[in-house]
Amino acid sequence: MNRKLCFTLLTLSVLVLCAGLALATKDPELKQCKHQCRARQQYDEKQKEQCARTCEEYYKEKKQRERHREGESEEEKEWGGRHEWMNPGEPAEKQLRQCQRQCDRQEEGGQQRALCRLRCQEKYRREKEGEGGQHSTQEEEEEEEEEGEGDEERQWQGQEEEEEEENPYVFHKHHFTSRVTTQHGRVAFLPKFTQRSKLLRGLEKYRLGILIANPQTFVTPTHLDADAVFFVSWGQGTITVIRENNRESYNVKRGDIIRVPSGNTFYVTNTDDDEKLYIVKFIKSINLPGQYEAFYGAGGENPDSFLRAFSWEILESAFKTKRDSLERVFFQQDQGPMVKASKQQIRALSRSQEGPSIWPFARESRGTFNLFGKRPSHSNNFGELFEADSNDFRPLEDLDITVSYANISKGAMAAPFYNSRSTKVAVVVAGDGYIEIACPHVSRSSSERRHQGSSTREEGSATYHKVSSRIRTDSAYIVLAGHPVVTVASQNNNLEVVCFEINAEGNIRFPLAGRNNIFKVMEREAKELAFNTRADEVERVFGNQDQDWFFKGPSRRHQQQQGRAYE
Amino acid sequence: MNRKLCFTLLTLSVLVLCAGLALATKDPELKQCKHQCRARQQYDEKQKEQCARTCEEYYKEKKQRERHREGESEEEKEWGGRHEWMNPGEPAEKQLRQCQRQCDRQEEGGQQRALCRLRCQEKYRREKEGEGGQHSTQEEEEEEEEEGEGDEERQWQGQEEEEEEENPYVFHKHHFTSRVTTQHGRVAFLPKFTQRSKLLRGLEKYRLGILIANPQTFVTPTHLDADAVFFVSWGQGTITVIRENNRESYNVKRGDIIRVPSGNTFYVTNTDDDEKLYIVKFIKSINLPGQYEAFYGAGGENPDSFLRAFSWEILESAFKTKRDSLERVFFQQDQGPMVKASKQQIRALSRSQEGPSIWPFARESRGTFNLFGKRPSHSNNFGELFEADSNDFRPLEDLDITVSYANISKGAMAAPFYNSRSTKVAVVVAGDGYIEIACPHVSRSSSERRHQGSSTREEGSATYHKVSSRIRTDSAYIVLAGHPVVTVASQNNNLEVVCFEINAEGNIRFPLAGRNNIFKVMEREAKELAFNTRADEVERVFGNQDQDWFFKGPSRRHQQQQGRAYE
Amino acid sequence: MNRKLCFTLLTLSVLVLCAGLALATKDPELKQCKHQCRARQQYDEKQKEQCARTCEEYYKEKKQRERHREGESEEEKEWGGRHEWMNPGEPAEKQLRQCQRQCDRQEEGGQQRALCRLRCQEKYRREKEGEGGQHSTQEEEEEEEEEGEGDEERQWQGQEEEEEEENPYVFHKHHFTSRVTTQHGRVAFLPKFTQRSKLLRGLEKYRLGILIANPQTFVTPTHLDADAVFFVSWGQGTITVIRENNRESYNVKRGDIIRVPSGNTFYVTNTDDDEKLYIVKFIKSINLPGQYEAFYGAGGENPDSFLRAFSWEILESAFKTKRDSLERVFFQQDQGPMVKASKQQIRALSRSQEGPSIWPFARESRGTFNLFGKRPSHSNNFGELFEADSNDFRPLEDLDITVSYANISKGAMAAPFYNSRSTKVAVVVAGDGYIEIACPHVSRSSSERRHQGSSTREEGSATYHKVSSRIRTDSAYIVLAGHPVVTVASQNNNLEVVCFEINAEGNIRFPLAGRNNIFKVMEREAKELAFNTRADEVERVFGNQDQDWFFKGPSRRHQQQQGRAYE
Repeated sequence: MNRKLCFTLLTLSVLVLCAGLALATKDPELKQCKHQCRARQQYDEKQKEQCARTCEEYYKEKKQRERHREGESEEEKEWGGRHEWMNPGEPAEKQLRQCQRQCDRQEEGGQQRALCRLRCQEKYRREKEGEGGQHSTQEEEEEEEEEGEGDEERQWQGQEEEEEEENPYVFHKHHFTSRVTTQHGRVAFLPKFTQRSKLLRGLEKYRLGILIANPQTFVTPTHLDADAVFFVSWGQGTITVIRENNRESYNVKRGDIIRVPSGNTFYVTNTDDDEKLYIVKFIKSINLPGQYEAFYGAGGENPDSFLRAFSWEILESAFKTKRDSLERVFFQQDQGPMVKASKQQIRALSRSQEGPSIWPFARESRGTFNLFGKRPSHSNNFGELFEADSNDFRPLEDLDITVSYANISKGAMAAPFYNSRSTKVAVVVAGDGYIEIACPHVSRSSSERRHQGSSTREEGSATYHKVSSRIRTDSAYIVLAGHPVVTVASQNNNLEVVCFEINAEGNIRFPLAGRNNIFKVMEREAKELAFNTRADEVERVFGNQDQDWFFKGPSRRHQQQQGRAYE
Repeated sequence: MNRKLCFTLLTLSVLVLCAGLALATKDPELKQCKHQCRARQQYDEKQKEQCARTCEEYYKEKKQRERHREGESEEEKEWGGRHEWMNPGEPAEKQLRQCQRQCDRQEEGGQQRALCRLRCQEKYRREKEGEGGQHSTQEEEEEEEEEGEGDEERQWQGQEEEEEEENPYVFHKHHFTSRVTTQHGRVAFLPKFTQRSKLLRGLEKYRLGILIANPQTFVTPTHLDADAVFFVSWGQGTITVIRENNRESYNVKRGDIIRVPSGNTFYVTNTDDDEKLYIVKFIKSINLPGQYEAFYGAGGENPDSFLRAFSWEILESAFKTKRDSLERVFFQQDQGPMVKASKQQIRALSRSQEGPSIWPFARESRGTFNLFGKRPSHSNNFGELFEADSNDFRPLEDLDITVSYANISKGAMAAPFYNSRSTKVAVVVAGDGYIEIACPHVSRSSSERRHQGSSTREEGSATYHKVSSRIRTDSAYIVLAGHPVVTVASQNNNLEVVCFEINAEGNIRFPLAGRNNIFKVMEREAKELAFNTRADEVERVFGNQDQDWFFKGPSRRHQQQQGRAYE
Repeated sequence: MNRKLCFTLLTLSVLVLCAGLALATKDPELKQCKHQCRARQQYDEKQKEQCARTCEEYYKEKKQRERHREGESEEEKEWGGRHEWMNPGEPAEKQLRQCQRQCDRQEEGGQQRALCRLRCQEKYRREKEGEGGQHSTQEEEEEEEEEGEGDEERQWQGQEEEEEEENPYVFHKHHFTSRVTTQHGRVAFLPKFTQRSKLLRGLEKYRLGILIANPQTFVTPTHLDADAVFFVSWGQGTITVIRENNRESYNVKRGDIIRVPSGNTFYVTNTDDDEKLYIVKFIKSINLPGQYEAFYGAGGENPDSFLRAFSWEILESAFKTKRDSLERVFFQQDQGPMVKASKQQIRALSRSQEGPSIWPFARESRGTFNLFGKRPSHSNNFGELFEADSNDFRPLEDLDITVSYANISKGAMAAPFYNSRSTKVAVVVAGDGYIEIACPHVSRSSSERRHQGSSTREEGSATYHKVSSRIRTDSAYIVLAGHPVVTVASQNNNLEVVCFEINAEGNIRFPLAGRNNIFKVMEREAKELAFNTRADEVERVFGNQDQDWFFKGPSRRHQQQQGRAYE
């Protein structure tokens, strides 16, 4: 109770403070935005200038927007989102404008918005180059060598195929297979993890998927024979869940987590006029390990309503309704599982937020939880980590899952670390970079035999192989418990990753470098004995890095060598 | 404590009230019985009359019985029970008399007894017809076509075989295999569920069986390497469990649930002079999934006492007893696991109810729980549902199981619904009817391939196939979580089903039709969008049925078409 | 709180009492030691005398030792321990002296020490004979026939091989395979239980192993992707665990239990100058069932540090350190996972006990728990049983494990009993004897087919086969839930067994003979019916044995017949 009271007081005082600031200065948002740009240590002077310029641009645009809100062409509204592979062939300029508009709708303060817009700009630039890279002839490629981006693109192509056989931990865009594909959006899932490798047997019950709904789209009511955790990674909309005897509707936006328990009918509406809605789905199956089914209550041929499986006389008796009426309702419509909704319908659906949450403390309700509404558990100039466990969001408790979001600044890296008990399933939602995992199971030469066949490997041999992969938007990767991993953002983009960690109860993240690394607390004598070197030298090595969890990353030169192969 | 006190007061006041009524009117039981017959809405006039007549008959017989209790011929005492397949070739008239006597011993009020007797009569009629049907020549069959019952019987024969290949969810009498068969009774179990189909993998650890003990029979002490939940579906007896350092004896009757934890030695006595004792056993294995062993402590050759596995010198030292004495006790008797007990022995065993339960609140003790002692959770003229979860009966908690009993009136049906998390294992203990399950896994043409082979089916195809089957006494069926199911009683008999539902914690039954169906709470706009029809029309269809959970079923004509094939 | 206070007061008063006694009599320890020898009922006069002599010897030696503590030759310090197979070819006399010194360091009172020394003497005698037996020619064997020990040895050789095919429950010394073998010690594990037999599927996630570290040896820091419970079966040392942001060091000795949670880096130091340190490891895997990996943080080629799997530029950035420094620390040492430590280093490591435990109540802390610090749960002249469950040692709770230690006096036996839910994994740490298990799964003729192939056995056949095996130091055996087992010590040695029991929650040990056997509480009538014999006779058989849990065992003649085959 005390904590809640504290939080309420804190929230109120912050609101008052903000209001006060707004009165005090004519333009506090812009001022603060600029200030934060200057304070950002890892930026060089040029970046700071650019950051400040973005603040000004943002502010100017905001003013304009406030004057004439309705002048957008239909064309502009089509695109949204940033899971890029979903939008092949979109003109980049349009994307840029819309991307920036999405940023402006974010609730967070000015600097967050400015950075978001910056990200849009960079993405826009990269998209253009990417388009070039993809279509480039051999001559163009040579020209681009200096820039390095086209090269990077080429590397991707080959590497992904090569990796697949060697690396059981990383999935790329082409691994996702569609469950639903319509003109209004799609649902795509990774195959069962155990199909990829026996090493992933701990994930036997889990599946990872993405739902993308176009603007103003209604996804028809469904229930699953599985527990689902949804993370809204982009856009905004409404998610409605039919609980026992009532419905709960939640207006959701980027960063929101919601749990849909097994068997609860739910439907999703993208209420935005312009942006796609992206939802990352993490699913725990109930009936069969790693297999789940979607049951559509409404539907015609596609989707087929499960009610159609019952005999006519059953339905007539159950609904006390003649067959012709039933046919009109259940059997004639044939619209697919995603439907374009009218503005009036959208308004009705999004207006109707109901359920147990009371404004302004919706974040604490059992309905949804916004990851970004909580202070990051680790944060410095090189990155931020946001986490929600069952203390933050009670519905995660019985699933024993933690949801986290790492934002690694461009050119930075996350500390090498391992989870003591959790297995991590991560999806890149923006940016690019690479990972390295130290793995005792997989060796380059014989990984195939080892992780496909039964575990005939001699145990305890204790050699660790680097499992390495480039990652970018819509890549997914797995890190098993105890396995050290390091994640590095590219020089060009922040790397943003959403992670689901199973076996969360009692898990500890043990950092291997940085201010609190595990080696630091050993006795001098243990260090001497373990490293067979003078304790001074060992202590120096483990003491040099004064940051915690996020560090300055390797230089560009090194990054270019990355991801080519197993070194 | 308060709740307990309340309950005690309530119980006492009900007792006083009843006593008062008994004094006030000369024949209150008959009066109330007749009254309830008239109040039964789904009865037509003729049925009401018959019901009233049965009340009178019951009352007359009761009076006679009170005068001369001991005039039963030996022959009459032989038969009992209603799991009909256990009693092939019994003369139906004798069955009828004994069935009705069983009814009279029921504790519930007069109407319950009258209905029970009615059921006996109907069963008796059907049995006679059934005998005819089974022995009928072709000519007879043609004559019976109008009646339709013989036809029904024939359908059964062919259907069961056909079904087996297509339908992994339903088991019939011939699927049960005997573990114990003696002249005094038998124990029969369904094979491992996973042997039937990969779809039943969630039931890997569970087994379903039936114990039938003849009147005045003692089932010798045994312990299992498995947790067991027993449901007494017919008859009465005593179940004794050896806990740590003491024994607990429970006098049980129809409707009683008892849990026997793994390793606890137990023995069962059918204390009745006439009726067989039927116990449905639901078992969760401990050592090996779906496999359990019975360990007999006493025994000669059959059953073999596990003590016989030890060497002589071990036994001599352990029991400080010479070999010849041990041989007399352990090795010379050879009587089988079920033994006829004398009246004196029966009396001693049934008198000795001990353990933590104190009369008259035995129902609330941790020992046993009577399902029918609790108000039905749903009840109307078309059926009743009795349920016991871990709140009612604490010993169910760690098994995470709910036990329920549905009594669907003849000609009625249970609402189509699905369980959000639970898998249901159901056994028909009386009556007949049919079920339909909407299943995304099985299709008619290729079910074999799909549920036998590995799950190579393209996921998310979202077509639902009707899995349909006739069911009757001793049929068992499985309904997976999320799968919509509908159960229909025949026109001739009430359908009584006992269900064990695993994964009970947090499970919700979602009705798809009736007063509280899940579609009702959707917004108008969601209905419009989902069904692609005017909201008015959708709302009308989902609003017509004003009953809850149990409805009037399809007419006779439709039922006859049922169960022939997958339509 | 009250219990803690009580315990504190009790401890203090015991301390005061002891101090008082020490002042009051000149030589109380010796006196008490002798007294206890006389009070030992199962000793005959000759044994009592020998016991008393041992007391005197012990006391004399103790006095001497107090005068000149430092006169031990280097040679004497080499050997220790009693897991005999680790020390082939040690001269027995040296073993004897050192064994006795180890006894003297035990904290327990004089009689415990005297018995320990007695054990050393007997072992020494047996060792000598064993050496003879192993190297004996045929002639010698015939001479030894009377003695029987050489014969026993021969039986072993043949039996172990024969057994393997028939008996899935027993493992011997040669089944252990090394994970680490160095000049300073070794780590050996049994193979996956499921590899041995499908019957052990319940142990799928578990592994059993032994760590032996030579005196003054440091075992380098490691973390596992598994939960581990360590039991110190001999010697003394320090175990250090790196928790979140701090380290906890525990000085451990024989009888200590410690849990190392998954992912926690730990290192072990044998701080003793003379004795080997033996740790029995029971492990529950996290990532893959029954497979676990050790991750070495420090190391060169062997073991390979997992840090070496990362790229140079990653390490340089993570540690903010140039490559050459890193190479010196991580990559040049190559010393193996066990290292000889200097006296100074040992002193520093063992001095540094830290963590949550406060002397003198270290036993109650969450860090370690000493089995022998608790009163035995069962104890008589024929044996003692020490147990620690999650009430004694909280860290066992989420693993749902009980650790116990049975010390069966020579010539005695443990009562036949079964566990209601637990599966027992037992390791013999001293002595020899044999076990018999009543098993419904395995028959002699067809055990191969039955436990290797899929379970096609007709269920419920209810014949129990004796699975029987000689056991001695470093034998391990499994007893499944519900399976009756009996353990017998040889005529020559106490049999000491440490047991890990999984599924501990709610488990009950049901004794089949002795004062509280399960048959005793049955009604007379149930006994009559079950055993088909007069109740008097049954009651006599079950009432003769007046001891509880530990009995006088079979005579020597019988024991010699044991273990030859399946009778």
